[in-house]
Amino acid sequence: METADAVVIGAGPVGLFQVFQLGLQGLSSHVIDALPHAGGQCAELYGDKPIYDIPGIKVCTGQELTDRLLDQIRPFAPQWHLGEQASLLEPRAGGGFVVETAQGTRLHVRTVVIAAGVGAFMPRTLKLAGLAAFHGTQMRYRLEANENLQGKQVVVHGGGEAAVAAAIACASAPEALRPAQTTLQHRRDVFDARVDLLAQLQTLRAAGRIQVAVGALTDAVEQDGHLTALVLASPTGECLQLPCDLLLVRLGLAPKWGPLADWGLALERKQLVVDPATFSTSVPGIHAVGDAITYPGKRKLIVSGFHEASLAALAAAEWLAGHALALEYTTSSQRLQRRLGVSLANGR
Amino acid sequence: METADAVVIGAGPVGLFQVFQLGLQGLSSHVIDALPHAGGQCAELYGDKPIYDIPGIKVCTGQELTDRLLDQIRPFAPQWHLGEQASLLEPRAGGGFVVETAQGTRLHVRTVVIAAGVGAFMPRTLKLAGLAAFHGTQMRYRLEANENLQGKQVVVHGGGEAAVAAAIACASAPEALRPAQTTLQHRRDVFDARVDLLAQLQTLRAAGRIQVAVGALTDAVEQDGHLTALVLASPTGECLQLPCDLLLVRLGLAPKWGPLADWGLALERKQLVVDPATFSTSVPGIHAVGDAITYPGKRKLIVSGFHEASLAALAAAEWLAGHALALEYTTSSQRLQRRLGVSLANGR
Repeated sequence: METADAVVIGAGPVGLFQVFQLGLQGLSSHVIDALPHAGGQCAELYGDKPIYDIPGIKVCTGQELTDRLLDQIRPFAPQWHLGEQASLLEPRAGGGFVVETAQGTRLHVRTVVIAAGVGAFMPRTLKLAGLAAFHGTQMRYRLEANENLQGKQVVVHGGGEAAVAAAIACASAPEALRPAQTTLQHRRDVFDARVDLLAQLQTLRAAGRIQVAVGALTDAVEQDGHLTALVLASPTGECLQLPCDLLLVRLGLAPKWGPLADWGLALERKQLVVDPATFSTSVPGIHAVGDAITYPGKRKLIVSGFHEASLAALAAAEWLAGHALALEYTTSSQRLQRRLGVSLANGR
Repeated sequence: METADAVVIGAGPVGLFQVFQLGLQGLSSHVIDALPHAGGQCAELYGDKPIYDIPGIKVCTGQELTDRLLDQIRPFAPQWHLGEQASLLEPRAGGGFVVETAQGTRLHVRTVVIAAGVGAFMPRTLKLAGLAAFHGTQMRYRLEANENLQGKQVVVHGGGEAAVAAAIACASAPEALRPAQTTLQHRRDVFDARVDLLAQLQTLRAAGRIQVAVGALTDAVEQDGHLTALVLASPTGECLQLPCDLLLVRLGLAPKWGPLADWGLALERKQLVVDPATFSTSVPGIHAVGDAITYPGKRKLIVSGFHEASLAALAAAEWLAGHALALEYTTSSQRLQRRLGVSLANGR
């Protein structure tokens, strides 16, 4: 079991700034996020879209804001647990908390900050009889880096950018890793993706490297414990068998509130109830910030999350210290500057 | 009398972001600040010092933060009243508020946001018998731009950067405007200023263009209603007369809470009491944000001021509309993007 001062659940912009504020208080952080990368909703939904209301930043995309925050928190070197979903949070006998992820990480921390936003971004699932048995083996949501698919029949299911990009990635892999056949399967022959991806798809279809199978999946065919094919009802009513060694379900991501609701924290209309003076939840030592919380006047603004993270860090540090702490400023405090690793160039 | 939707009292970073948030709500702003430039405490005290805890901005000086915010609020073109001190705020018969400055500006506005920080930055005064009569004429705190001082005996009082810079400015003015004599007067022959200014001072002293008069001012000499000289007690105990046509008092600035305390708003330990859900003061329609306010958990952080300004703008807009307003986002709202004057490049 790894130990740390704090765990931040959620790596969106507010969770990232939470790491920064905890770091200023001298507290080290682990960070858990269901997505395989930092940035949360902001990177996932607004990655390439402009945000105009971050104070002092006239315009930036969600990805740019994420990158700026990652750069800013670098001095505090958080321990990342990306692609993992926090599944359990409970007080630990002897003090502190135990936090576990569905992927098997187990942490012992002194304090917790939940910055879970609208929930954990999880892949949208495909409900199909007989498919559950292949979850994680022949039915998956993403490929490994440089995964060897040679000789395989790969079916990519979905009509959006995630599906189109995955089909292109399979069909464009180096020959030694490339599947025998890449099939993009969607209910219509219409795909919603960036223009450059649609052009690439067109080229690969014309070259016979991607085939498109239109229709609705109705069943999975199993032989000797292996998935061998999918049953497809075509728009004209025929039933075809689509050979399949690996089904990649690429329906995009949807936020799921998930196990958080079972951690015994006070909720109000599915939001964590906090004290807006400390951003403490109903359990002392567990704080919460950002879009997952509610208090009188709460608005789901990134700028509010930054304020909440600042006060939560101070309150967590005071809770751990057992007494009030004086507010220090990064401009004038040598202690904060030492923690930031910046030179003390304030003198004349 | 000028009319506007809102007046923001205080042009520090929080006041500037307040203009932005009011602008997003479709409300135009006037801005009043006692300093002759925007940026408040942040530009005045930390203009060249690094700030590390603005979210998404790894490091910036107080002046850089000010410049970034000025750039960000440009689409909302506030009306500036810089170098003016808000002296009166009262409800107006028929609705709205009247705001006046000590410099004679009179505004009629629908709503008010006080972002006054630690108070109005006013020049530190010199208490000397007989000097009050010359306030604003022969005893002043700053020169006009390109003021003609030809033939005059100018005494600059002070030992810090403001005094040193003013003495250099007088002695380096074009010959047609330059005083007959520039005297820098301080209790010791030690000055606290940037190294380059101290070097310039040394050069001008060596050239006889600045003389330094060391000692304590004890009296002002008047003749026919004019200030003619200052009485100086030298360190060796002599009393000298220093000829003086213009006394420039340059002791730096100090924040003064000033008339704000007399506006009938609820105060607690010299801070404005606000509701942290709306940042309304005890008078509906008058909001307050930043370092001038108090509420449970309040910390004097710029990042908190940005949150407060965001909620205050929403609450002010709702108060004016008489009903709740839906929160819109700059990333997705065409209305907000129109107000920002940005092109709608969100489509595919």
